[in-house]
Amino acid sequence: MAKPTYFYGIHAIDALLNIRPLDGLSLFIQKGRETDESIQALIETAQANGISIQYAQKDNLTQLCGSPQHQGVVIHARPMSFADEGELDNFTAKDDCLLLVLDQITDPHNFGACLRTAVAMGVDAVICPKHHAASLTPTVAKVAVGAADMIPIISVTNLARTLGQLKQAGVFIFGTALDETARPIQQADLTGKVALVMGSEGEGMRRLTSEHCDELVFIPMPGNAQGQLQSLNVSVATGMALYEVVRQRQ
Amino acid sequence: MAKPTYFYGIHAIDALLNIRPLDGLSLFIQKGRETDESIQALIETAQANGISIQYAQKDNLTQLCGSPQHQGVVIHARPMSFADEGELDNFTAKDDCLLLVLDQITDPHNFGACLRTAVAMGVDAVICPKHHAASLTPTVAKVAVGAADMIPIISVTNLARTLGQLKQAGVFIFGTALDETARPIQQADLTGKVALVMGSEGEGMRRLTSEHCDELVFIPMPGNAQGQLQSLNVSVATGMALYEVVRQRQ
Repeated sequence: MAKPTYFYGIHAIDALLNIRPLDGLSLFIQKGRETDESIQALIETAQANGISIQYAQKDNLTQLCGSPQHQGVVIHARPMSFADEGELDNFTAKDDCLLLVLDQITDPHNFGACLRTAVAMGVDAVICPKHHAASLTPTVAKVAVGAADMIPIISVTNLARTLGQLKQAGVFIFGTALDETARPIQQADLTGKVALVMGSEGEGMRRLTSEHCDELVFIPMPGNAQGQLQSLNVSVATGMALYEVVRQRQ
Repeated sequence: MAKPTYFYGIHAIDALLNIRPLDGLSLFIQKGRETDESIQALIETAQANGISIQYAQKDNLTQLCGSPQHQGVVIHARPMSFADEGELDNFTAKDDCLLLVLDQITDPHNFGACLRTAVAMGVDAVICPKHHAASLTPTVAKVAVGAADMIPIISVTNLARTLGQLKQAGVFIFGTALDETARPIQQADLTGKVALVMGSEGEGMRRLTSEHCDELVFIPMPGNAQGQLQSLNVSVATGMALYEVVRQRQ
């Protein structure tokens, strides 16, 4: 069991207290903020679960969590945990399962932003490799505004092997490519059992990951046709791809 | 003329040096990084434009620009400027003009991220109100990885009045709503002259802005149907909306 750590931010703590209240140890509230409506609600949920409440100065909270972005509330809690690799079967059993595979997304802000979008767009589970990936840190939880606790995140030892298993379970694997040698994403059939693989911004998917995809797709960017070499942030690109999946399924 | 300031980051400085080299005053390079290929290219462009080069320790660069995210390069340069309100006519004259209106987007990271996506997706110009908006700070430029210098950004005194002028010029104005009382965006016709209005994450568009829209649209989020109240980051929502515009125009 990993050591407890300090999570921060109203939405992240709200999700933690509601989804896994037994992991909470102490809730720290910024003095003078205890009457804020949203913080009042957190205090009540914490008290109902026997979590101790402590009051501290703003700067002390910043020191505890290592960020000034705490919004007046920090919780000492057991860390989030990844879902078990063995659980994959539960998701692939679903007729229209939608899995998001994040390959090499190491930046916690991008990882958190992808999780937030994944929850909003109804993704069933997120898969990421054990290495070359971000950990489930408090920063990820803060950026994800609670989403990190709302969706199963499966950490796998060998991503290429996992993609092979998904294929055997009837999941069609789409890799997003950076260049336009692939097919425009709107021309691909994204209904049914789908896994969508996003690579890192700078380098895209690893070669081995790419080779395990059934089809490579790209997001058309007319701005680039005008000679301006502009790329998309990976969390924005993930949003666009998931939007297209949802659009096709409606 | 606003005072010169310190911009940072490889892509932001590359765009500045290539698009408005006369605004550059001094380029600061982190000692030991001068042989990096991308930094070498910046030095050459700077020298070709008579900009002085100085070498400094990493920490000094951090101090200059106020951020550790400088990637080994900082430039002292005149600030970016907003385009003139009078230039709007040049854009609305185009048959399929695409304008992005950012109402109340005050966070520099979100603003920069929206600019980056706007350039990639071929937006003609970005419009934002003089008040309740982010300034064109070095943080915006860094997050936008150069895009802030690539696209006209028009700051307007009275957004409601500007929307009225756009309508008169034959531009159809779509406002993105947070709730589902609006029409799903994929059912709207986004071809022709279009302005897309994005509101802030917490509160959406202001009432007056909303009243000046021809139609309100929303991005369907199946995740919310599952009872998890999850919203989208405004730069991700902007990306999805622009993706839909581009899809319909292809």
